[in-house]
Amino acid sequence: MSRTSRAFLIVVSGPSGVGKTTLVDRLLAADPLVRRSISATTRPPRPGESDGRDYFFVAPERFEAMKAGDLVEWAEVHGATYGTPKSYIEKTLAGGHDIVLNIDIQGGDQVKGSFPDAVMVFILPPSLAALESRLEGRGDVSGRALEVRLANARAELAAASRYEYLIVNDDLDSASAELIAIAAAERARRSRKTPDFLKRLDR
Amino acid sequence: MSRTSRAFLIVVSGPSGVGKTTLVDRLLAADPLVRRSISATTRPPRPGESDGRDYFFVAPERFEAMKAGDLVEWAEVHGATYGTPKSYIEKTLAGGHDIVLNIDIQGGDQVKGSFPDAVMVFILPPSLAALESRLEGRGDVSGRALEVRLANARAELAAASRYEYLIVNDDLDSASAELIAIAAAERARRSRKTPDFLKRLDR
Repeated sequence: MSRTSRAFLIVVSGPSGVGKTTLVDRLLAADPLVRRSISATTRPPRPGESDGRDYFFVAPERFEAMKAGDLVEWAEVHGATYGTPKSYIEKTLAGGHDIVLNIDIQGGDQVKGSFPDAVMVFILPPSLAALESRLEGRGDVSGRALEVRLANARAELAAASRYEYLIVNDDLDSASAELIAIAAAERARRSRKTPDFLKRLDR
Repeated sequence: MSRTSRAFLIVVSGPSGVGKTTLVDRLLAADPLVRRSISATTRPPRPGESDGRDYFFVAPERFEAMKAGDLVEWAEVHGATYGTPKSYIEKTLAGGHDIVLNIDIQGGDQVKGSFPDAVMVFILPPSLAALESRLEGRGDVSGRALEVRLANARAELAAASRYEYLIVNDDLDSASAELIAIAAAERARRSRKTPDFLKRLDR
């Protein structure tokens, strides 16, 4: 199918535990025009992970070299580094696919800096209390670590003011429908239409 | 259901014969938050039409008085006058319902003037040739009248550049899905969120 709009990035951010991964998975399942961003990382592959599908696994020296201009954004998490390769993004967009990135707000800011056309979507918990109980329910954090996450969550909610779209994930079905609708609606924007398409209008 | 966004207008325009009425009907059937705009008119009710549901039927003197400030836009068609009452729009928005208006581009411009938040959607035929055969297929116009409609259609396509969203109606299912997605996505825009909702974000 030839598309009438230029392909674009969809940045999905939000506090930890808010359900971003599930929402992104649902978007990918529903919309064949959207692809997932693939990160480069210095950490070794885990069982079942494959290079070029889950991550681009690279040596630390290679990652250092990529920082010079091949990465849209990068961050260190638990001692390993992760980054978004610009070449993969550009190749995928040129192939006519939109790309969804599940990324923190610092990363989101950097992506928007490199790709000003990126659609910025922030996922919100129904309330801070709801987020707190979701984080606790996961069972992988407690005590001091939970406090830190909640403080981070509060700081991140304030960052939502820099995002174009806000989705409250109080119901998974309606929240994913909203994300899917955003991708479809953005494709219908005149400002995203290809020059070829717009040429058909003024004859 | 209490909504988190301010209600808004959706203006749907496009050349005659492009399928606007069907698309608007599908949006109304799919989205319970959207209501149809009801026009005031000086023409008498036709069998089956009821006042306040299909139109507000008013006397010519009343319509003249409404022009002074009670109408968002008005136009004369085949000797009768039609207009969009501001009071109905405002009451419906205040009740938490978005309003869709199937309206020509002159009317659309006037609506946008009164309600700058209005979402502007233009429906396009797959091609001028497709529109031509659709107009002919209707059988209600021919010869000189058809020429005039096609000239109007060309002029209207040029006006599409003033609209935010462009939908090509080459397939009714995908075109109506796009219109439905636009309504849902616009509700998720931060710029449309209520002050109460946004207050929850910065604590």
